[in-house]
Amino acid sequence: MKLLYPNSISIDVKSLEGFSVSLHQYDTRSDIPEEHTDAEMLVTWSNPVSQLKVEAKRLKNLRWIQSLAAGPNDVLSAGFDASKVTICTGSGLHDHTVAEHTLGLLLNAARRFFEMRDFQLEGKWPGHLGGPQPDRPSGKFTTLQDANILVWGFGNIAKTLTPWLTALGANVKGLARHSGVRQGTEVYSEDKLSELLPNTDALVMILPGDESTKNALNAERLKLLPKHAWIVNVGRGTSIDDKALVSALEKGEIGGAALDVFVTEPLPGDSPYWKTPNTIVSPHAAGGRPQNPETLIAYNLRRFLAGQQLKNVI
Amino acid sequence: MKLLYPNSISIDVKSLEGFSVSLHQYDTRSDIPEEHTDAEMLVTWSNPVSQLKVEAKRLKNLRWIQSLAAGPNDVLSAGFDASKVTICTGSGLHDHTVAEHTLGLLLNAARRFFEMRDFQLEGKWPGHLGGPQPDRPSGKFTTLQDANILVWGFGNIAKTLTPWLTALGANVKGLARHSGVRQGTEVYSEDKLSELLPNTDALVMILPGDESTKNALNAERLKLLPKHAWIVNVGRGTSIDDKALVSALEKGEIGGAALDVFVTEPLPGDSPYWKTPNTIVSPHAAGGRPQNPETLIAYNLRRFLAGQQLKNVI
Ligand SMILES: NC(=O)c1ccc[n+]([C@@H]2O[C@H](COP(=O)([O-])OP(=O)(O)OC[C@H]3O[C@@H](n4cnc5c(N)ncnc54)[C@H](OP(=O)(O)O)[C@@H]3O)[C@@H](O)[C@H]2O)c1
Ligand SMILES: NC(=O)c1ccc[n+]([C@@H]2O[C@H](COP(=O)([O-])OP(=O)(O)OC[C@H]3O[C@@H](n4cnc5c(N)ncnc54)[C@H](OP(=O)(O)O)[C@@H]3O)[C@@H](O)[C@H]2O)c1
Repeated sequence: MKLLYPNSISIDVKSLEGFSVSLHQYDTRSDIPEEHTDAEMLVTWSNPVSQLKVEAKRLKNLRWIQSLAAGPNDVLSAGFDASKVTICTGSGLHDHTVAEHTLGLLLNAARRFFEMRDFQLEGKWPGHLGGPQPDRPSGKFTTLQDANILVWGFGNIAKTLTPWLTALGANVKGLARHSGVRQGTEVYSEDKLSELLPNTDALVMILPGDESTKNALNAERLKLLPKHAWIVNVGRGTSIDDKALVSALEKGEIGGAALDVFVTEPLPGDSPYWKTPNTIVSPHAAGGRPQNPETLIAYNLRRFLAGQQLKNVI
Repeated sequence: MKLLYPNSISIDVKSLEGFSVSLHQYDTRSDIPEEHTDAEMLVTWSNPVSQLKVEAKRLKNLRWIQSLAAGPNDVLSAGFDASKVTICTGSGLHDHTVAEHTLGLLLNAARRFFEMRDFQLEGKWPGHLGGPQPDRPSGKFTTLQDANILVWGFGNIAKTLTPWLTALGANVKGLARHSGVRQGTEVYSEDKLSELLPNTDALVMILPGDESTKNALNAERLKLLPKHAWIVNVGRGTSIDDKALVSALEKGEIGGAALDVFVTEPLPGDSPYWKTPNTIVSPHAAGGRPQNPETLIAYNLRRFLAGQQLKNVI
């Protein structure tokens, strides 16, 4: 049995030894060498889609792909034979990094660091943002303290983020496919959306990028949010109806948007988001750094060899 | 007995009733009315220094000033008779707000939101900050996870901030006048500075603005910090030797500086800080919103009337 792991990330290969499996590094920037196209197992990380498409045809014995990405849309669309190949996500490897970046975006929005920067670049003191300020003024999102934060997509990342938000004084609620209390947070299903949105100061979106989440945040739902509410999207760009959000931002119908993900990345030069008011453009920077990938790979490798159910199967 | 409270902040005066004291609001923008110059007790918040100077001469019966500022340098310099008037700070009222802003500045620095903004304003995608990234690269400050953070001035604000930093994965150490463990954090005294600085990724300064802290961070100490280390100052501008910091920033001898306080505020138009590389200028925005001031005022009012030792005496 053969496992191929990529050179696009430094993997401590010692942590994968001890199984009856030969381990081979491959270059994500070129074709996998002919002698390794018999591999049963493939680890992927930031492989070009073009390469994945080629290998989907070449790796005839492939039975398991372990992606290190939380949302491996690239692998899913490459044409691997779903009847033969089990695809596993790297969900869990990005919890800490994405949660930290999300917290940063929320504080950037609340404390208006982006606006301070605009003033700094012009050598101007933004006095209206400093000095004695009204405390938690109604109709503004200025602090996480007592803020109502709705996290849409309450998976691994949300579970890391929520205790931090709670420690900072926020009231956090979740929204997912299934309702129920998770780690002390009340999680609702989508039918409660129209009750929850009007009472939301910041909507944090951490949804996967599949058909079921397409344009989840549409014009109708945007209208339900208070005028001061911010949207933070670190899931996938496809879950927001861009036209509707751009219009809401331009008309000031919404507090602002901090976006780390976009339908097209890099964000095209003619995207309105560069200039819509109260918009923070972050270059898909939240994740990109899988934490301890070896632990997940070894865990699933053992289960694969034992014929057991894998973790993070799509 | 008479207590005067300012109109510069909304105070729930009901929380101060029940004592044998008459309560009167005064306008911080004009002279205190003649009939109230017999007051024994004065609450201050963002009073103009000019007013304080006048009242220092007029309020002959004054015995206690409760400032709501954590660092009431304005009251201290107004000329009240220290032999008669006890001055109390609002230390504790700003813990949450300042700690939150400080966390925001740290994440702004680590995740480089300020640089993303510069790119956004030019309609450019900062690809070097997003996508697959090296995880916790040495010689860079990119995350709070595993970062060594030294908090210089380990008082009330630091005690609120530290558990958040720890939850985000940082290793926090403190520096204060007295050493010892405080709420689980090891706090060192200044003689350990030269051992601590070389191993610091972010130096958070929360020092009061008195003579003892003047130019605490000087050229010599700056040199001890690693090249990638960031400085976050939310205490007072006077605790940094500006010339030395500007030079370190310009020469790239330091990772960057996020400054909320300055020797002169608003920051003068000709200050080098507007343009030094990797500098975040925040307009003294961390605090400015005393939390539940009534509780502190009522606490000290009771003790004052009972002839007991007050809290937060300078
Ligand atoms: N910006 C970045 O750099 C970055 C990095 C990593 C990940 N991501 C994105 O973040 C996404 C989430 O990651 P994760 O690790 O937290 O995933 P996860 O653990 O799989 O959680 C996904 C959550 O979304 C919910 N969900 C899925 N489809 C839904 C729908 N149609 N309506 C409502 N809720 C739905 C799920 O609900 P149930 O719990 O009820 O099933 C679950 O709570 C990834 O798919 C990826 O796209 C972005
Ligand atoms: N940016 C803003 O908007 C804002 C808002 C509020 C406050 N502040 C500033 O933050 C400062 C701290 O506030 P706080 O409420 O945390 O004050 P605090 O509770 O009085 O704590 C002050 C800390 O500084 C330490 N310290 C004092 N002089 C020192 C010296 N010469 N060398 C080393 N350490 C020294 C003290 O050491 P010991 O514990 O050993 O005595 C103490 O740990 C205030 O004085 C104010 O200037 C700024």
